[in-house]
Formats: sequence, C-alpha cells, structure tokens
Amino acid sequence: MKAAVLNDYNQPLELEERPEPEITRPNQVRVKIEAAGVCSTDLHAIDGQLAPAGMDVPRVLGHENGGRVEEVGDLVTSVKVGDPVLIYPPHSCGVCVNCRRGRDMHCEHHEFTGLSLDGGFTEYLVVGEREIVPLPAWMDPVEVAPHSDAGITAYHAIKKVAHLMAPGSTTVVLGAGGVGHIGLQLAREMGNGTVVVVDPHPGRRKLAEDLGADWAVDSDGVVEAVWELSQGRGAALVLDFVGTDQTHADGLGMLGLQGTYSMIGFGGTITAPSVMLVSQEQSLVANLVGSWTDLWDVLQLHAAGKITLKTETHPLDDINEVLGRLREGDITGRAVLLPHANGS
Amino acid sequence: MKAAVLNDYNQPLELEERPEPEITRPNQVRVKIEAAGVCSTDLHAIDGQLAPAGMDVPRVLGHENGGRVEEVGDLVTSVKVGDPVLIYPPHSCGVCVNCRRGRDMHCEHHEFTGLSLDGGFTEYLVVGEREIVPLPAWMDPVEVAPHSDAGITAYHAIKKVAHLMAPGSTTVVLGAGGVGHIGLQLAREMGNGTVVVVDPHPGRRKLAEDLGADWAVDSDGVVEAVWELSQGRGAALVLDFVGTDQTHADGLGMLGLQGTYSMIGFGGTITAPSVMLVSQEQSLVANLVGSWTDLWDVLQLHAAGKITLKTETHPLDDINEVLGRLREGDITGRAVLLPHANGS
Amino acid sequence: MKAAVLNDYNQPLELEERPEPEITRPNQVRVKIEAAGVCSTDLHAIDGQLAPAGMDVPRVLGHENGGRVEEVGDLVTSVKVGDPVLIYPPHSCGVCVNCRRGRDMHCEHHEFTGLSLDGGFTEYLVVGEREIVPLPAWMDPVEVAPHSDAGITAYHAIKKVAHLMAPGSTTVVLGAGGVGHIGLQLAREMGNGTVVVVDPHPGRRKLAEDLGADWAVDSDGVVEAVWELSQGRGAALVLDFVGTDQTHADGLGMLGLQGTYSMIGFGGTITAPSVMLVSQEQSLVANLVGSWTDLWDVLQLHAAGKITLKTETHPLDDINEVLGRLREGDITGRAVLLPHANGS
Amino acid sequence: MKAAVLNDYNQPLELEERPEPEITRPNQVRVKIEAAGVCSTDLHAIDGQLAPAGMDVPRVLGHENGGRVEEVGDLVTSVKVGDPVLIYPPHSCGVCVNCRRGRDMHCEHHEFTGLSLDGGFTEYLVVGEREIVPLPAWMDPVEVAPHSDAGITAYHAIKKVAHLMAPGSTTVVLGAGGVGHIGLQLAREMGNGTVVVVDPHPGRRKLAEDLGADWAVDSDGVVEAVWELSQGRGAALVLDFVGTDQTHADGLGMLGLQGTYSMIGFGGTITAPSVMLVSQEQSLVANLVGSWTDLWDVLQLHAAGKITLKTETHPLDDINEVLGRLREGDITGRAVLLPHANGS
Repeated sequence: MKAAVLNDYNQPLELEERPEPEITRPNQVRVKIEAAGVCSTDLHAIDGQLAPAGMDVPRVLGHENGGRVEEVGDLVTSVKVGDPVLIYPPHSCGVCVNCRRGRDMHCEHHEFTGLSLDGGFTEYLVVGEREIVPLPAWMDPVEVAPHSDAGITAYHAIKKVAHLMAPGSTTVVLGAGGVGHIGLQLAREMGNGTVVVVDPHPGRRKLAEDLGADWAVDSDGVVEAVWELSQGRGAALVLDFVGTDQTHADGLGMLGLQGTYSMIGFGGTITAPSVMLVSQEQSLVANLVGSWTDLWDVLQLHAAGKITLKTETHPLDDINEVLGRLREGDITGRAVLLPHANGS
Repeated sequence: MKAAVLNDYNQPLELEERPEPEITRPNQVRVKIEAAGVCSTDLHAIDGQLAPAGMDVPRVLGHENGGRVEEVGDLVTSVKVGDPVLIYPPHSCGVCVNCRRGRDMHCEHHEFTGLSLDGGFTEYLVVGEREIVPLPAWMDPVEVAPHSDAGITAYHAIKKVAHLMAPGSTTVVLGAGGVGHIGLQLAREMGNGTVVVVDPHPGRRKLAEDLGADWAVDSDGVVEAVWELSQGRGAALVLDFVGTDQTHADGLGMLGLQGTYSMIGFGGTITAPSVMLVSQEQSLVANLVGSWTDLWDVLQLHAAGKITLKTETHPLDDINEVLGRLREGDITGRAVLLPHANGS
Repeated sequence: MKAAVLNDYNQPLELEERPEPEITRPNQVRVKIEAAGVCSTDLHAIDGQLAPAGMDVPRVLGHENGGRVEEVGDLVTSVKVGDPVLIYPPHSCGVCVNCRRGRDMHCEHHEFTGLSLDGGFTEYLVVGEREIVPLPAWMDPVEVAPHSDAGITAYHAIKKVAHLMAPGSTTVVLGAGGVGHIGLQLAREMGNGTVVVVDPHPGRRKLAEDLGADWAVDSDGVVEAVWELSQGRGAALVLDFVGTDQTHADGLGMLGLQGTYSMIGFGGTITAPSVMLVSQEQSLVANLVGSWTDLWDVLQLHAAGKITLKTETHPLDDINEVLGRLREGDITGRAVLLPHANGS
Repeated sequence: MKAAVLNDYNQPLELEERPEPEITRPNQVRVKIEAAGVCSTDLHAIDGQLAPAGMDVPRVLGHENGGRVEEVGDLVTSVKVGDPVLIYPPHSCGVCVNCRRGRDMHCEHHEFTGLSLDGGFTEYLVVGEREIVPLPAWMDPVEVAPHSDAGITAYHAIKKVAHLMAPGSTTVVLGAGGVGHIGLQLAREMGNGTVVVVDPHPGRRKLAEDLGADWAVDSDGVVEAVWELSQGRGAALVLDFVGTDQTHADGLGMLGLQGTYSMIGFGGTITAPSVMLVSQEQSLVANLVGSWTDLWDVLQLHAAGKITLKTETHPLDDINEVLGRLREGDITGRAVLLPHANGS
C-alpha cells in the first residue's frame, strides 16, 4: 500500500510502498483509511520538535483518521466489518487508573497514532479496539475525520470552562484556524455569553462570522478592542488556539477580574507578576488533546447539526503541497487527505 | 475446590466440590480467593429478590472478594502472579460509552460476580483484568475485602454529595451496619459538618461513636432529635443506608431547607407531595454500587489510615451460620469468609 | 391610585382607589408600575391555597412588575429617578447567611411582593433597593416584566441541571405555558442535547416549535414517545413545569438510567418504590423561584436575543377577564397588565 | 481614644489620641475593638506598597478585628448591643452584581478596613452592618480575630480547589506562617490526600506537624523531596502562601501531571513556557482574600474544633515591637493586639 513517510526531519514526506498491516492481537481492528486530516502538529513533527513527545523517524504521519472497519480480532465487540469509524489517536490500555477515570490521553502506556506510531497518511491501519469510535451508519468518515484531534482538542478545553461563559460575559477566541474554527462554534453552543473571535486573516474572520461569532476582529489592537467590546469588564474567558509570546501577552492583557486564560495552542513563554494575577484573582488553564468520550460528544454535536467543519479534500499524492499551503497560512478550515481517491 | 452454592431460593447454601476455573481468554486473571465478605445482598439473593437483576440458580454467591493472582492471560499488563488484589464485582467491557466515562457499573454488557455470575464463596475465581484492583504489596486482602462492594457503595454515594456537608451543616447517617459504618467514616472524612448516626442497636451506636460520629442516636424519635441537634435547621444531607418505608419517611421528615435525601439502602416506597419538596427546594438522590475508581479511592483512604473496617472472620464451612446471624442483626461491622482457612 | 384588590378568597379582584405609597426608609425606591405579568400563582392566591405561604387578604396581587424609578431614598446607590427597572419579588435583608450566599429567596426575613405584601396590580409600589433590578436604558419594562417570576423560576431550575443536558442526551420539557415557554428556550440555549416539549394544546406546541424545540408532542402517550425519540435511552432530564399526579408519574416513567426529574410546577404526589430509583440511579430535584442574580442573568440572555417572551398586553381594568382566560388555558405565553394604559 | 497611626511610609506607627467614631448612617454598627491581628500586609502597607490598592496616609492600620457591639443604627437587624463580632474587612454595598453573587471582595464600591479606611489598631470602629460577622455568644473575639483576614484568605483559596485533594493525592503547602498555618489545617480537613508542609523555620515545621501535616520539610531541596514523597507522581496541588520567584519556580517544579498551582502569597514573577504547562495539562489559580460567607464558614470549622489558631497577645502599645518581630520572622502563628488591655 502507499504511505507518506517522514524519513528525516525538515524533509518533504516521501510516498513509498509498504506492506499492509495485519491484526496480531485479538483486541485489534483493521481500518481502511478513507480520510486523514492535516494538522499543524504535522508541521511541528516535520520540524523535529516532537522528539521529546516520543516521536522518531521514519514515521508515517497522520492522526485525524477515519474510514471503515476491514477486519476485527476475536475479542472485539463494539464494531463489525463495514462500520464507519474514526480513530482516536491516543492509545490507552483501559486498565490503568487514568484510563479508568476516562482520561485516556494520560494512560500510563501512552502512544499516539501518527507521532509515536505510524499514522493514517496511508491506506490501512491496525489499532486497538479502545482507539475505535463508531460512527452512525449514515455518517461519512471524510466529513468528520478532523474531529479526531482538532475537534477533541477544542472540546476538551472548552468543556472544562463552559461554566465561565455566563450570560452577559465575554469570551475571546484567539485564532480561527483548524482547531479554532471548531472552538468558536463550541463557545457559542456551550456558553451563554458573547463570543469575540480574533484572527489576522480576513478570510478566517469571515469564516468566524459565518459560524456564529458575535464579533470577528483583527489581531492588531485587540487588547483595547476587547476592553471596549466588553464595556470595560474585560474577558471572562480567553481561549488561545495560537500560543505565541504575543498571544500569551494579549490574552492576559484582555482578561477581566476573575477571568480565566486557557491555552490550547502553545509555543511562547508566559510571564506574569503574581501580584497582577492575585489582585485580579485570575486563572491560567492548559489543555492537552481530549478523551475518547470527548470525541464521542463532539460527534453527537456534529450529528445534531450544532457544529460543522470547514474542510477541503485532496488526494494523498498532494500531501507535500498541502503541507506547504498550511505552513503559509493559506488553508481556511481543515485540509483532509483521501488515501484511496482516484487519480491520487 | 470447595464452593458454597445456592441451589434453590430460600434454601441454605450447600458446600460442594467443583472443578477449578481456567483462564479461557487472554485478558483474564485467575485469583486464589483469600477473603469473601458476607453482605445483606446475599440474603436478598437467597430470598429470590434478585431475579429481576439477572440472577439465576444454581449460583455460587460472594461479591466482596480478595486474594492473590494465581495466573494471568497473555494480554494482562497491570498485575502479575502473587500480587494481592480485590475483585471489583461489576464486569465491564471497557469500550462502551458508560465504561469510557468511568461508569463501569452501567456497562452495556453488565454482569455481577456473585449474582449473575458465580462468586467468591469458593477457592478460585477467573475474572477479566478490568475487574482486578491491585493492592499495595503490604496490604492483606482479608483486611479490605468488604470494600469491594460495601466500601464503594458508601463512597460512590457520598462523593456525589460531599459538597453538601458544608461547615456548620448537619449530615445524618441512617444505619451503622456493614455499609453504614464505612459511610459514617466517609461523611466525617469527606465532609466538613456535624455527623449524626442513627441506629436502633446500642452496639452499632457504640461503634459509630468509636469511628468518629459526633452523635449516635436511637431510631425512636429521631426526626425530632435531628431538628433539635441541628438547632432548628434540619439536616442538609441524609444518607439512608437502610431503605424502608420508615427510614424514607424519617429521612424526608428531618430534611431542612434545600436539603438532600440520598438513598443507598432501598426497599420501601417514597411518598411525598411535590409542594413539600418544592417549597423547601429539596432533592432526592439514589445511588447504585460504585465504579472501579471508587474502589481505588477507598483503598487509598484505607491505606492512609483515614478509614477502617470492623470485620470478623470465619471459615467458609460456617457460611450458613454467618448468614443466619446477619439476618438476625447480630453482626456488627462485616463478616468475612476465609475459603482456604484451616479447619474450614 | 387604582389597585386591583383580592378582598376575599374565591372572589373577583375589585378595582379600588388607594393612597399612593411613600418611601419610609432611606434604602427604599418608589416605582411607577408600567407592567405587571399575570401568573397562575395569582389563581392559587385567589383560590386561597397560599395562606400557608404567609398570604392574607385583602391583598393587591401582582408579582411580575416592571416600571420606572420615581423616587429614591438617601442610601440608594444603584438606580436614579427615571431608570427602567424590574422588581424582584422576594424581599431580602442582605445580611443573613442565605442572602450573603446569594440565595435571596431563602432570606430569614422573607416576604414576597404580591403575595405576603401588596403587589403590582396598581400604579405605584415602594420596595427596598435589594428588590430593584436595573434594566439597560433602552429596554422597555413591558417587554420583560414576566421574567421577574416566570423567567427566574425557569432559569433557576435549569441552571442547576444544565450540565445534564449533554451532547446526545434527551431533555423533556413538560408544559409550554407561561414558565415553560421560557424553560424550553433555556434548555435549548444552556444545554447541548435534544429538547422534546410536551403540551396538550396545539397552540402551545406550535409556539414550542417556533421557539426551537426539536420535537413538540402531545401529552397522550408521551412516555412511550420519549422512549422512542430517545432511541431507547429515555430522558436524561425531565423538567416538569406542570406538577400533577399525572406529570409526576409520566416524568418518572420516561426517565432513563442515571436520569434526573426536576420539578418546577407542583401539586400532585410523588410515589416511587426506592428500588426503582436505586436500580436506575435516578435523582429528583425540586426548585423554588430564583435569586436576584438569576433575574440579572435572564435579562442578559434576553438583551442578547438568546431568549424571547411571548406576551399580550391588557389594561388593568381587564384583570378579571384575563384571570378567567388564564384559568381556562386560553392564554399562550404571558398576559401583562398595563396599569397606566389609556382607556384602562 | 488611643490609635496607632501610620503617618508616613517607612516610619514606625505613632500612638495618638483620636475622637471616638460615631454612627452617621442607620445601617452602621459601632464596635468596641477587643482584638486586632497583626498581618504581614501591615508591613507592606508601612513599606508603601499598597498605594496602588487605594491606600493613603495618615492611616490607622489593623484589618483583623474583633470585639463587641457598642451601638447599632436604626436599620440594623442582625446584631444587638453586647454581641461578640468580627469585622469582615472589605466594605460591600450589597446591591451590585458581585455583592449579589456573594463575591463581596469584588464589590464595585470596594473599601478595605485598615488599608483604604482606618482600621482596628484603636479602641472603637464604626462599620456597616454588611461588614459585621456575629459570633456565637460563648466565643471570645480575641481567640478568632485573625480569621477575619488570614482565615478567609486560606479558606477562599482552598475551597476553590478542595476537589483536587483526592484520595491518594499529594498537596503541598508552601509556608506555615500566619495564613499558612490555617491553610495546612484546612487542607487536612477539606481534602482527602497527603499534606506536605514546607517551611525553612524549624519552629514552624514543628507547628505544622502538631497541626496535622503528614510531612513537614525544609525549603532546601523541596522539589526533589516532593517528587520522592509522592512516589514520582508529583503534587496534585501546590498552595503557595509565600509568593516569591523561588516559591513560584519550586511550586511549578514539583507539580505533577494535571496538577494545579494556587497562589495566595504573591510578589515574584511567574515564568513558564506554555509547552510545559500544556504537555502536563496544568493550571495556575490566583486568589484574593475571601467573602463574608467564607469567614462565616471558617468560624463554623473553628467552633466545631476542626481547626484552631496559634496566637500570642500583646497590648496595643507594643505595636512597633510586634511589627519588628513579624518582619524578622520571629512570630510563629499570629500576634494579636488588645487595644483595651490593662497596662497598654
């Protein structure tokens, strides 16, 4: 089968032939990959920044995978051949304390499809049943594949702080990209206040407005803009989907009394005198991916029409071109690869 | 091996020879049973009241089981031969939505060791790895076996309402028996108010005082007693470990403004005009067993010396005598059977 | 000034001339009443059912009052003459523990405008500053007066259980009348699942659909309908705005595993074997009015266009006719009296 | 009456004669000050660091005040002459949204006794009824005065995160001084895990052990010590009662996966790469004083014997000597001034 492989850091992916993977344990499932979202984490992987997270090369990237069940091991009970499924990227043992608490992404035996293990920029994948998320029969995996990582990352972060988006409050979403464009919809759906989206790109601000943002404003001068839009109360909640020194400073700067700054994107350094945080009684919250049930919840919201995804599809062969456009900021929403598409 | 079997309802258990169970799936564990608690649910089982819960005869009873790992299947990662363990009684698949949320007792493929499946009133038991709770190496399974059901039942219920036991509030514990004597300790440990224990038996009231109850009072005239002890505010929380028409009525009668009546024991019928509940803004909460992580939490509290168990041990041969004493209300704390004890 | 007075139970209100009330304490506010909602609680008052709640005759009814500030006492800081305001009906001292916790409706010195004290079916009212809710300058008190009681009753109940309306869950709203038609909007806005509204009146079902209910169904056969609409899972939450023996039984009958039945309306008797509640791990929650901040929150939602009110206005002189139509079930939404309207 | 006045920053307080304050508004209370705690915030005030918080000179310091009611205004309902009381230091209007929500310390009309207004290092004080906390008749204000600020500061912070102190978890208390020695007791009482107290002074470590800390360790090498004591899991919660660059760095360094670092003391600067927080899914929480109900709750815990205070008493005349010892770190627990003591 064809696979897009990262053979060395800072190099283009290479399309190679690889043998199809086989089920080797009775609790595994073989999935025909029909869709694989392309995420900015793939860029970090290519840039060699994820070695500390357990990554190595050569590696088949791709962690937002959906498709159909091809084969199931003897112990598998929750899906059967032909079922549409997504693949939840963290591997979880199901018997450690974190797994038992539903915090699969903190499993003691953590692995991550497409980073520490080979991922979905290829035609077939074998994963454990714990990683399988059944879809309703009528749902197309291509339509929802990006929820596997982008969706749960946004949902996991927002669920934690949904009670802060009270009537009359202001929530600011920094960044309306692949994750943020889901996040702003969840803020609208799960919160009860005003949602202000901040993005330097006019196309993404337009998308934000189409998806229900109360306001979509440019990054320049955003701190003052938020204080003004919130009538001097500042933000009750800032959801930072970007994570640079600039957004860290902006996020804290627009935060009102008793406000919470929540980080989903990361990369910069937080610097804050503790007197500033204490005198305003503010909180900072950091978030990491999400759980299997977060993905299940996101799919319920999607199935009910409460949220949607903005996607564009491409054949697997175009992977390097898609990665280039992503790096340039030229993708609005999410690009999804189709490993079995004709002409690819 | 020897097993105590319920061959027909309303009959004594019969001690029979049975073949030792074998591991048949790679995710199973074989446990040598060193201790099996005797619970009033066993009486309900014998009385034939649990057929609606999926029970059938013949059945080996016993759902509060502890022992040592004898053998593990190929997929088992969390324990090894010789480890001390408890057996969490509900069986859970680990892949349905309730299991993923950590609500193992509501698994779609629910079974219950000692009720719908054969239990621990015998020498060996094979269960899935999901049912295994590892103990610290130094902990004796005999000391903690009753936590497998009694402990989690109390903990699960109390964790849900721990925030209601605020400073200055009054919590009433109805019944200081096998479950209640754990419950009162948890109310003291997890709450911040006054704990009043109610029991008709002087020996159990004495035990309640030894275990830290602020007050231990007789059941007669308890409604008035609670109003007086709470200086006219009534109970903020009532934890009913009994569950008769009488305790249901008492529990509601002693409940203050915005109070919560929580049922762990059951059997009677709740009758309440809704105007009474609405005008007092009261709540009723019902509880069922607990999760695997509830058992893990209880064991942490036990290991730290924050709670203890009052137990008495008996050889398995004495099972019918022990059941008789339990039925008569003659056991203070919990009776535990030792299937491998000498002279049994 | 003109006032509609209940001089004796089970009699029509009588329109009388009364002296205008004067400020007698420096923390009071005099309000010109521009709008007074007519609530089914007024019917209970007329029927003499509220004597236990501290009511007496003669009494000017009316507890959903809005208008403009006419005069303020020397200690008043939060409003000035001419400001549009609503009157929060419970009186609260501001210094007892319940008031300090924000539970104004459980103030130790509780009074209730329009029931234990004279209300707003008249031209002017003097209340404490604690009872005043400032409106945005542009907001017409006539438009929002029913939120003073109907709005907060719905909001207070739903806020408590909003976390139960999870993605994929089913919430059932029993009754789409004056309170329920707000409740269903709040369930839609504050929850993330499906909302099923139940009402015997086709006009109110139509209103429910217009206001965003996913389903609006007749009361006949509703238990079966809910089990079917929820694909066999039952309701995660039932919000009962009616409160009869029938709705109590229906509400419990449609409740799924771990479901919560919440009572806002009341009148019937709850009857439930505790084994049924325990084996399904269900809860019952009763609710009473709401707090001042609940009213503030509701007004934020209204101002942001997230909820609306269906109202019809009438001159004060028509009070007995309006009460008659309310009793017959002929009002959809809320009737609001205008004490200063021309021709009244 | 005698008063200890800060006439200029960085100078000793001066004992002056001042006229006794009179009630000027009907909602005020005149209190005879029997006890006034000395807090390190008084040192910050003397050092001129609190001008940004609205402070000015000349000022009578003292914000942990208790005594007896001498006189009440006409509108006062909750206390009468002779009642023992504490004075809650933040002034609150009772009618703004923050006050209504029970967040008195964030009142729009905020003042603070002993900082922005004259305080209790004197014989009499007039405050609003909203600032009065009634004590049980048998309770001596001298015994509990430090709860007015130290107690609520600890309680407010710990109540927010009490759910994080789960069975088996490790909580670290940095600093066992005036606030911290209450904090460690609350961590023990309100949490269910292990409590490790860190302090460089042997006398305060001894106090911590006497007050129930599981471990009391030196500040040197504390990060490694916590990782070891927690068996490699790190702290689930760090409560920093100190607030220097060093404790900020230590606190983050000892924090485990999904841990929370809570700041009560402040002064240094937080510096953290966001990738570190995100990859560990950690939170930072800052806290400010507490609410009136926090003080009420603390007094319930004190009255029930669940917490205690370590105090030493001095005549008001000794104020400068006491401040000097506090600055040198020579006070264990809290020093309390007695303005009416003989020989003062």
